[in-house]
Amino acid sequence: MEKKRNISMAVIRRLPKYYRYLNELMKNDVDRISSKELSEKIGFTASQIRQDLNCFGDFGQQGYGYNVKDLYREISSILGLDEQYNTVLIGAGNIGQAIANYNFDKFGLTLKAIFDVNPKLIGIKIRDVEIQDIDNLEQFLKDNKVDIGVICVTKSSAQKICDTLVANGVKGIWNFAPVDLQADEEVKIENVHLSESLLTLTYLLNGRS
Amino acid sequence: MEKKRNISMAVIRRLPKYYRYLNELMKNDVDRISSKELSEKIGFTASQIRQDLNCFGDFGQQGYGYNVKDLYREISSILGLDEQYNTVLIGAGNIGQAIANYNFDKFGLTLKAIFDVNPKLIGIKIRDVEIQDIDNLEQFLKDNKVDIGVICVTKSSAQKICDTLVANGVKGIWNFAPVDLQADEEVKIENVHLSESLLTLTYLLNGRS
Repeated sequence: MEKKRNISMAVIRRLPKYYRYLNELMKNDVDRISSKELSEKIGFTASQIRQDLNCFGDFGQQGYGYNVKDLYREISSILGLDEQYNTVLIGAGNIGQAIANYNFDKFGLTLKAIFDVNPKLIGIKIRDVEIQDIDNLEQFLKDNKVDIGVICVTKSSAQKICDTLVANGVKGIWNFAPVDLQADEEVKIENVHLSESLLTLTYLLNGRS
Repeated sequence: MEKKRNISMAVIRRLPKYYRYLNELMKNDVDRISSKELSEKIGFTASQIRQDLNCFGDFGQQGYGYNVKDLYREISSILGLDEQYNTVLIGAGNIGQAIANYNFDKFGLTLKAIFDVNPKLIGIKIRDVEIQDIDNLEQFLKDNKVDIGVICVTKSSAQKICDTLVANGVKGIWNFAPVDLQADEEVKIENVHLSESLLTLTYLLNGRS
């Protein structure tokens, strides 16, 4: 892993969108695309596209545009998709089960274990992974190298689970609990706050300013 | 509904977080809070907090800070939470079922109907709402005023569902399909792109720049 230059989160958050559009272009057998054509599809300006991609390297060619397959591979690598991520999921309620069923293998994640407190859920399998008692979590983390922990527990349990994960070497947290988790800076936390997304929608629909 | 001033999406996206923290403070019986104290909790600078809230009104008081309950009520109203939103959900797969089970009533949404193409799902109830055949969607929208459509179908069906919703007066779309939907500007679309969130995490963990 190379040391990252100081690239803004705004740029980083646009990268997965480039990745998604380039994937679509490849599927449609498009070999090359200009920043102007890409702009019409993706909705960013051509100059923003050039600027964003220039943060990571010199990919385009004047008068030719971007080679779709090459740029896709580059962005894939930039996004860390050359790596494999051992993953555990904690909290097999509605959201947890949906995420456990979500096909994130294509992004290099392998679901190694699922944990819950609910005795009714323990022993049930989701995609061949058995739900275990949460009491097994710590030992599992000591016995297995885990890269990403997906937290789908309640707000009140999330920080404790996060602490256990981090204390046992987990460096990435995908957090679905409606709380801002605290951890060392080297731990990367990405939140999916459904209620915040929904409140943005109600604001846009009916809010006042 | 009043006409909105031109407030940036960055400010708007911070509002639900203020709402969440103020809710916590109320639960903990905190009556008032300074921007400095709020800053320590929420992680924005005190000056950003004052600036954000000033976009919407004159809420704080020099030397006193913010009255928690008043500010909570104000932000609730700013976020459009005084209103009721008749809601339909389309696509009762894993994510769709999780969202249908999600307690969004507290934000004013009432789940009126769920639709799916899968005959095995039709007739099943989630929180007392029966899953209907997708063929009923258009007629349902003609017979009922629906404010928000939650799209949890596959990428390939999402735009068609969006078109049906919009053609029948739905003004808000909460989209979980991994695609950017096209609609008139007056239609508000809020996306939850899980894969983009996950790729941000893999980038932060292992990406290169």
